[in-house]
Amino acid sequence: MKKILMAGFEPFGQDKINPALEAVKILDGKQLNGGFIICCEVPVVRYKAVDVVMEAVKKHQPDIVISIGQAAGRAEITPERIAINIDDYRIPDNEGNQVIDEAIFDNGPAAYFSTLPIKAMVESLQLKNIPAQVSNTAGSFVCNHLFYGLQHRLVGTNIPHGFVHIPLLPEQVKDSNQPSMPLMMIVEGLAILAQAALENKQDKVIGGGTIC
Amino acid sequence: MKKILMAGFEPFGQDKINPALEAVKILDGKQLNGGFIICCEVPVVRYKAVDVVMEAVKKHQPDIVISIGQAAGRAEITPERIAINIDDYRIPDNEGNQVIDEAIFDNGPAAYFSTLPIKAMVESLQLKNIPAQVSNTAGSFVCNHLFYGLQHRLVGTNIPHGFVHIPLLPEQVKDSNQPSMPLMMIVEGLAILAQAALENKQDKVIGGGTIC
Amino acid sequence: MKKILMAGFEPFGQDKINPALEAVKILDGKQLNGGFIICCEVPVVRYKAVDVVMEAVKKHQPDIVISIGQAAGRAEITPERIAINIDDYRIPDNEGNQVIDEAIFDNGPAAYFSTLPIKAMVESLQLKNIPAQVSNTAGSFVCNHLFYGLQHRLVGTNIPHGFVHIPLLPEQVKDSNQPSMPLMMIVEGLAILAQAALENKQDKVIGGGTIC
Amino acid sequence: MKKILMAGFEPFGQDKINPALEAVKILDGKQLNGGFIICCEVPVVRYKAVDVVMEAVKKHQPDIVISIGQAAGRAEITPERIAINIDDYRIPDNEGNQVIDEAIFDNGPAAYFSTLPIKAMVESLQLKNIPAQVSNTAGSFVCNHLFYGLQHRLVGTNIPHGFVHIPLLPEQVKDSNQPSMPLMMIVEGLAILAQAALENKQDKVIGGGTIC
Repeated sequence: MKKILMAGFEPFGQDKINPALEAVKILDGKQLNGGFIICCEVPVVRYKAVDVVMEAVKKHQPDIVISIGQAAGRAEITPERIAINIDDYRIPDNEGNQVIDEAIFDNGPAAYFSTLPIKAMVESLQLKNIPAQVSNTAGSFVCNHLFYGLQHRLVGTNIPHGFVHIPLLPEQVKDSNQPSMPLMMIVEGLAILAQAALENKQDKVIGGGTIC
Repeated sequence: MKKILMAGFEPFGQDKINPALEAVKILDGKQLNGGFIICCEVPVVRYKAVDVVMEAVKKHQPDIVISIGQAAGRAEITPERIAINIDDYRIPDNEGNQVIDEAIFDNGPAAYFSTLPIKAMVESLQLKNIPAQVSNTAGSFVCNHLFYGLQHRLVGTNIPHGFVHIPLLPEQVKDSNQPSMPLMMIVEGLAILAQAALENKQDKVIGGGTIC
Repeated sequence: MKKILMAGFEPFGQDKINPALEAVKILDGKQLNGGFIICCEVPVVRYKAVDVVMEAVKKHQPDIVISIGQAAGRAEITPERIAINIDDYRIPDNEGNQVIDEAIFDNGPAAYFSTLPIKAMVESLQLKNIPAQVSNTAGSFVCNHLFYGLQHRLVGTNIPHGFVHIPLLPEQVKDSNQPSMPLMMIVEGLAILAQAALENKQDKVIGGGTIC
Repeated sequence: MKKILMAGFEPFGQDKINPALEAVKILDGKQLNGGFIICCEVPVVRYKAVDVVMEAVKKHQPDIVISIGQAAGRAEITPERIAINIDDYRIPDNEGNQVIDEAIFDNGPAAYFSTLPIKAMVESLQLKNIPAQVSNTAGSFVCNHLFYGLQHRLVGTNIPHGFVHIPLLPEQVKDSNQPSMPLMMIVEGLAILAQAALENKQDKVIGGGTIC
């Protein structure tokens, strides 16, 4: 039985709830075909976010790590392709840090690609009629920070890791005409993509590019 | 026990499926508090759409009629405020009619307001965390045509009627970054707003305007 | 020489500027082929807006009246098709009135169609590469109020009137990824559509519908 | 007098025109304060695009290189922050190449940051009321390919380079409700950002991040 550590962010900014945390809590202990999910709550605080997940990695010795965050304005579950070595925060994180154009790790490369099979994950979601698409930017806030930080810390471990953005919940958008996705559909989607991560050590060669 | 006739459109244009029809089929016979739903399939053909629903009205003698259509690009269930006396079809209907700026009924008024409690319907949806908003335009295709045509034919009957647009299904948008809503959430939403229609003979005074 | 009265709204809400007013001020006295433009500043206040334009109508005796307002979120110049008999204000007007679902004129019809040649106006703009499209909703705030109020007051006068929404200015959107249009393009566009209004007593039969 | 080489893409896909090429042609020879612009036409073909600009670099010995491409759907001039080492083409390039998830240079790093002062460029545009914003993704088509390829080839030269996406022209969007920007505003914007590149060897520390 393989272990998948699924790390979900707590609420931040104006929001009282974060679908990432709600979803991973529900998935804690979930049995997959050949593995199961362990959940981890992540603070929206630079560096501390990375430390908290790395402690969970040491404790649980997972085979795969998947980090989850919310993405206002997106209608689909979007596995991220790349993490970039920059912190440029439009709003403060949950401990008040608001930095501009600082490297996350001074000695780190400009970027890391996801080591999850993102095309296979998107394909498996679409086959179940759950909207999904590859994203080429995780932004420049704590989501990207955690994505980059974990890729950096996990170098040399052979543990695949990547970041997945999910839409807001219906209750977060109500009358604003922003897209949303019900919690149970997000939960089902995360289980499906975790299964795809278990089954695809190599990603599939499927088109998923964007013009710009 | 009151009867609510719920009329859902068949597929049109490029689509093989229409969430309106799928949802009303599931809701056929559904028990509400003080009433039940009868479903009716509507062709996407001018005038014929109105005739088909009016035949169902004669047959079933409903207390309330709610027409349902899909709205690509919308993230929310949107009860329509007003039907306008114009056919201006960007694409042909399902019998090839493509007309420009023709009145639906030459002797009809410029518009009819919905006679459903649209604000109460939106409120009841939002309370259950289903994205909803009043819409001020049902477009100028067969959805608006049916809405206007039924308001016109039902004048003098005391049967409240209105039109509700629903989002596309996840399987209709897959990788296009358009908003969607799962079928079961649409079904639940339509049952909730039908219940609100049963319970509110007068609409509630709740803000739901748009600047433009 | 025919007279075109062009009425532009003052700023409202959070905005310090309104492109509608800026544009009509520049167009005041503008010579067209067979006519010229007279500008009129309109307060964003229910009923008062209508009264101010009707006073200008009495004073100038125009042949055509065109009202102009800003539309946040729109990328194109959008002649409106229809005005509806409802005030439903999401924000207060400039004298603090914030009403919900009140008729503008209790004895008025549900709606009035624009009496301007909206399809010919859109065509003439597109031929000059200025983004344009017919809109089927002027919202439910003071823009729609003025549109409806003037159609109602001008009944029986044979003076064509309609409402045109224009995009925000670049300086109003700066870093928000909302669409905008430069002031000089708006000014050119309004002169082009005024010319089209002069030249087309009957509108052209050109498709310009929307599905929903 | 410093030389700024400005490289603009030819049309591709369904388009007969590319605002990038139109704008740089107009800017060819343009005098700035302390420099002037040399224009270069770039084929939308992988590797060949990079080769063509590198030949122009050898010929003209510029002090700064700025590459320009169109971005459908964007309302603003968007200097790109980062180029990524991947080709994932949703459509074929102009010689029919359509590759999936291939590295651009096998021995290259995952990404290069722009070496232009992107925050100073955005600030100088916004001060002139031209919509502008930093972008965190140049996509995965030939725009990103050229951006990455030139950063890779220019390593060790001390020539700053970066990529700037510009909106479509009004004539490309006409009735589609997509954002656009007039050619003369794009031309003015590119001259302004070229001037900012001349004047800011170090970028300014100004917030310009995105949440996701």
